[in-house]
Amino acid sequence: MRKHAEKSKIIRSSPALQKISKKMLAQGKSIGLVPTMGALHKGHVSLIEKSVKSNDVTIVSIFVNPVQFGANEDFAKYPRRLLADAKLCGEAGASIVFAPEPKDMYPLPLQTFVHNPALENLYCGAYRPGHFAGVLSVVAKLFNIAMPCKAYFGEKDFQQLHLIRRMACDLNFSVKIIGARTIREKNGLAMSSRNEYLSTEERAAAGSIYAGLLAAKKLHGQGEVSAAKLKSAVKERIERASGKIQYVEIVNKNDLMPVGTKVLRNAVVLVACYFGKTRLIDHVEL
Amino acid sequence: MRKHAEKSKIIRSSPALQKISKKMLAQGKSIGLVPTMGALHKGHVSLIEKSVKSNDVTIVSIFVNPVQFGANEDFAKYPRRLLADAKLCGEAGASIVFAPEPKDMYPLPLQTFVHNPALENLYCGAYRPGHFAGVLSVVAKLFNIAMPCKAYFGEKDFQQLHLIRRMACDLNFSVKIIGARTIREKNGLAMSSRNEYLSTEERAAAGSIYAGLLAAKKLHGQGEVSAAKLKSAVKERIERASGKIQYVEIVNKNDLMPVGTKVLRNAVVLVACYFGKTRLIDHVEL
Repeated sequence: MRKHAEKSKIIRSSPALQKISKKMLAQGKSIGLVPTMGALHKGHVSLIEKSVKSNDVTIVSIFVNPVQFGANEDFAKYPRRLLADAKLCGEAGASIVFAPEPKDMYPLPLQTFVHNPALENLYCGAYRPGHFAGVLSVVAKLFNIAMPCKAYFGEKDFQQLHLIRRMACDLNFSVKIIGARTIREKNGLAMSSRNEYLSTEERAAAGSIYAGLLAAKKLHGQGEVSAAKLKSAVKERIERASGKIQYVEIVNKNDLMPVGTKVLRNAVVLVACYFGKTRLIDHVEL
Repeated sequence: MRKHAEKSKIIRSSPALQKISKKMLAQGKSIGLVPTMGALHKGHVSLIEKSVKSNDVTIVSIFVNPVQFGANEDFAKYPRRLLADAKLCGEAGASIVFAPEPKDMYPLPLQTFVHNPALENLYCGAYRPGHFAGVLSVVAKLFNIAMPCKAYFGEKDFQQLHLIRRMACDLNFSVKIIGARTIREKNGLAMSSRNEYLSTEERAAAGSIYAGLLAAKKLHGQGEVSAAKLKSAVKERIERASGKIQYVEIVNKNDLMPVGTKVLRNAVVLVACYFGKTRLIDHVEL
């Protein structure tokens, strides 16, 4: 990992960042944006490093977006540690940390939403009403504030990444969306800020998620095309480790539509499950 | 009116316009955008002239946006005359006419929409389901394609202008929204491309819309605060001229909420009605 001596500059106001970004664009500088909710881990760091490599300036936004949390979700307890995060951003080479307060991002209650009615109520969206409209709206806002040429998102949030790509295309945002591969713990657990909620035992057991996905991938590689059997392979592993399945779905990776009973090409297995009270998601391409 | 010798350049591709706009911004030029559906009249010309006065470059978009028309509305018969429109744009000083085909604006069916659930189903929205989501989505697209510093809209479409202002604010578009006053025929009828649908008799009778609104304004000025009586004044004039009321509402001009039974300050009367088969809208501030 390249280490940078310089600190990231912390900017808390969206008009201030917008002004800086305009100036940088007028100077011909390329801007990379890494939108995060903070509590940065190695997955985020890989996104920042990817951006630093191919842009003149990298902006990391750190904003726990209230609009994408449901009433019974973990908005209040979501981990917040701006100074430690800003240090990581600086070390990874980011120039700017954009850390607005909710009242800066929502001076008025949000009335105008960006949403995708065709896809926002499927999979994770079925269990998190309003979540993806909250995500798309805040990402649209961040695009307009930071004015990036490229924006970086983890592939872990597969449905989210798909919706963001589609938004950028549908609404002609002049932003190239870059997905980056999921970074994993040694036991295969996908890195997530929410892993901090897990007990030591739960964290160990949650390795079964990726093990289940890999088992399905192996079966598919051996010629198994039954969606039911492939899903069962995932479920069994997770349930054997005391995880509670929320959903397992097999979808077309290009349009996110369910593949039906027979799984051929371009398929991705999506899973959401609970270990203890912590909801975790992951996926694998078959 | 200032006459310009130069013709507007017609651009038909959104990636081409986006590239040109980026280049102009990098050169420090200010861009004004006048979004229209073509069939330009004096109202549009006043918007273009306003933009020409305060921007280095004025882009007029001409796009009959299928997404904002209902299934039983006038998409197919909406007047289209690109060359005459482009001539008017050039005369008014616009540098660029952006006239994309639907397949350029919607290479894929639109999945991602911008909408305002709080306000999009009121007033005109109650009678035109999906209309305002179609408007906001295409305006967001045009902002991202043309990258204007300022964008110009007629005040005639009062609810539309309010929703666009709110969108620009909610989603942090770096675009100043400029409203321009309604231009009227001699008999008070607000200029609209749809006036072309009217017969000579209907056009004369439709002068009653503004007459009704002015009657309500006069009553209010004389101390009448009853919403019912003010609305009746509008309805009576229009119905006496054989117009058919769709709705008359009195709303707060700042948040577009209905004012209730008693009309005090900051109120606007909105009206939609039919003369023959043609739907017309207008409003007046009390």
